[in-house]
Amino acid sequence: MRLVVVGGVAAGTKAASRARRVDPEAEITVYQEEPEPSISECGLPYFLSGTVAERENLIARTPEDFAGKDIEVLVRHRVEELDPENRRLSVRNLATGERFEDRYDRLVIATGARAILPPIPGADLDGVFRLRFLTDADGILEHVREYSPKKAVVIGGGYIGLEVAENLHRLGMEVSLVEAADRVALAYGSEVAKKVEAHLREKGVAVHTGAKVEEFTGDGRVRGVRFGDRGLEADLVVVGVGVKPSVELAREAGAEIGKTGAIRVDRRMQTSLTDVWAAGDCVETVNLASGEPTWVPLGDTANQMGRVAGTNAALGSGAETALEFPGVLGSGVFKVFDLGVGKAGLSEREAEMAGFEVTSAGIETASKAGYYPGAGRVFIKLICDSETGRLLGAEAAGDGADKLVDVCATAIWGRLSCPDLVNIDLAYAPPYGPALSPVIQAATVLSGRL
Amino acid sequence: MRLVVVGGVAAGTKAASRARRVDPEAEITVYQEEPEPSISECGLPYFLSGTVAERENLIARTPEDFAGKDIEVLVRHRVEELDPENRRLSVRNLATGERFEDRYDRLVIATGARAILPPIPGADLDGVFRLRFLTDADGILEHVREYSPKKAVVIGGGYIGLEVAENLHRLGMEVSLVEAADRVALAYGSEVAKKVEAHLREKGVAVHTGAKVEEFTGDGRVRGVRFGDRGLEADLVVVGVGVKPSVELAREAGAEIGKTGAIRVDRRMQTSLTDVWAAGDCVETVNLASGEPTWVPLGDTANQMGRVAGTNAALGSGAETALEFPGVLGSGVFKVFDLGVGKAGLSEREAEMAGFEVTSAGIETASKAGYYPGAGRVFIKLICDSETGRLLGAEAAGDGADKLVDVCATAIWGRLSCPDLVNIDLAYAPPYGPALSPVIQAATVLSGRL
Repeated sequence: MRLVVVGGVAAGTKAASRARRVDPEAEITVYQEEPEPSISECGLPYFLSGTVAERENLIARTPEDFAGKDIEVLVRHRVEELDPENRRLSVRNLATGERFEDRYDRLVIATGARAILPPIPGADLDGVFRLRFLTDADGILEHVREYSPKKAVVIGGGYIGLEVAENLHRLGMEVSLVEAADRVALAYGSEVAKKVEAHLREKGVAVHTGAKVEEFTGDGRVRGVRFGDRGLEADLVVVGVGVKPSVELAREAGAEIGKTGAIRVDRRMQTSLTDVWAAGDCVETVNLASGEPTWVPLGDTANQMGRVAGTNAALGSGAETALEFPGVLGSGVFKVFDLGVGKAGLSEREAEMAGFEVTSAGIETASKAGYYPGAGRVFIKLICDSETGRLLGAEAAGDGADKLVDVCATAIWGRLSCPDLVNIDLAYAPPYGPALSPVIQAATVLSGRL
Repeated sequence: MRLVVVGGVAAGTKAASRARRVDPEAEITVYQEEPEPSISECGLPYFLSGTVAERENLIARTPEDFAGKDIEVLVRHRVEELDPENRRLSVRNLATGERFEDRYDRLVIATGARAILPPIPGADLDGVFRLRFLTDADGILEHVREYSPKKAVVIGGGYIGLEVAENLHRLGMEVSLVEAADRVALAYGSEVAKKVEAHLREKGVAVHTGAKVEEFTGDGRVRGVRFGDRGLEADLVVVGVGVKPSVELAREAGAEIGKTGAIRVDRRMQTSLTDVWAAGDCVETVNLASGEPTWVPLGDTANQMGRVAGTNAALGSGAETALEFPGVLGSGVFKVFDLGVGKAGLSEREAEMAGFEVTSAGIETASKAGYYPGAGRVFIKLICDSETGRLLGAEAAGDGADKLVDVCATAIWGRLSCPDLVNIDLAYAPPYGPALSPVIQAATVLSGRL
């Protein structure tokens, strides 16, 4: 059985590795466009500042590592066409320009997502970057070495923009963050967004919201960013306004595309094409909090999806022991300077858009026993369905936010209600939290409002 | 309506405060034996070393604070007798020795637990202490100031013993930990116990297991500890071998005592006596992982129970809006030097004793993305019911153990199975964990064994 995997980052390499474990006899080839497979893309912002010092540390496994598991990984190879009728592929070797044909018995599509570069005049100037691949980071670092930029502008106030802003600031640059919407961290409620903005300013990052960039100015190299009648000097620009799923290969082959624009798959990660599975940032899944289709391009989810797709591809279509991927909660966390911020499930606005009548409660409290040294503060907001009390979402910002978010993600996963959380038995000791977890405190306040 | 609360630490003061909110008109009196109410007992070990510098910081609220909420708190008052037929109490003013009668309409018993001092010869020597109340800590610190002890022996390898050992070590003493069982941290599996012992030794604490203390030697003041044919020099001994519920008042009044030796209550925290509720370290509850009666004297649980008991006492027996306390999971966490250790639900042994056939998996993994600076290691073990896959327990030791334990506690609370946890959507970013949470990694390994 010949299994071909298109894409070799998180989902693709996980699928290949799992398939190898399930079927030791299969012939497995992974095609990867970028020069390295198995890149830890989430680490890229930290590589810019040298927080992650070694480039190699971001490469989880090399083609040689995969060869040791009898998995062929061909980098700098782009799959350009897919003929699902005849189970054939056209592949371009990007190093030589040569194009060749390949065949498969089963296929996993893990083509990922790519960073959006909006059609803004000047976007092709030297010094305007995106940050999606390790090669993007290489480009930014080369620019930094060559021109020692002093003023950086980061476009986009989502988690990538925020992480990049922090890491460029660590390099000693004067950093401005420019966001078209009226606030940063749009996936969150306004309370969290305000905390993030205040923290950025406290750290010396200028924040411009409601600022839609109209032009990058320069003379070959970028010199500035213009929005409305304002302008900022810039000798380095990083655009982090979002990503979109890379679905062209699948779409042209006739695979069904979901309403989010990503590839539609069933719970077994199988596409509408025979013997073709898909996983990772190119596929659509369901948000288990809202029950609606969603597209959440994140490394951990890609990993989990890749495991399911790879196992099932190796087992073959219709296998009784096939795994299922149930969906996601949209859980996420990021660090910006000293502030941890995370969410699970739906924000208040997302819950309302999904048709829920919601009740919410946000509290700010000590992150440890008040008398214990180093106790910080943390904000937590819970969002629940007013009718049933079911927890729909949670967001947190501050000391230990990541822990609170994971507790809430687990509660949503278990379909617990806010009243269920009032008496939940979490583990307490003074160095780790206040006597009653902020989750319990917020659930108690919220339950009083139901 | 006159509400009397017997006991003024976590459960008692919480019950009184909740009752006040529910019924602004009630007359509320709290009797407390020790000289201060509302003590954060979990902070006592840290007060010994000065990690918590100010004594006042351990007093969450003073009698004056309670007076401001129209709650009368009488410290140094012991309730010596309870006559539930006539709703009367005999109270001793410990300051004056005077005894007087009081009456109640409704009563909350929150008499707590006290530290066990086994009948070991020499236990009455100067320099042999327990650590349960703030006054015990005062006594230890006075002994330290007066005699500058160099060699401390801590008896008992549970979390109190471990925390005391660390904090005496911080004071510069040579510390030995002596445990009668064959390992410390008995509530945990042997993997965690070994890690704790290794960490203690690494930090310079001598650990003696299988060492049943037979005598404290000395000449008025303690000079040594003898077990078997071995002996240790000691000029300070702290005995932390456990606590037992203070149920004499309730028992003598005819309240039903559960099989754990603590007061039996229903889900509304009502005792078998009319209009008498009970909460905190003196009551028995149910372990929701095993379904069996359990007694878990912990501050956070006491707080939650106190909230339920206080609310219900204020509402009166049979109220439709009465709250319920469902039970506990035996969740706990402690820090010993640089090692965090925690558990939720049942250990493997506890699960087997509760009649389950269990499957378990323990893994050791990175606590953050491997390339992120400061990534540590953490061990996690999951225990589940072989038949249904339901998660019954989890324990963790290492970096971020507290977070993993709380995630698992929530999963047990939601009656999730190990296979449910394989695809759970937890929040990932490199500074906060590896791409797949250790919980997910362990659940994946365990699910493969089911």
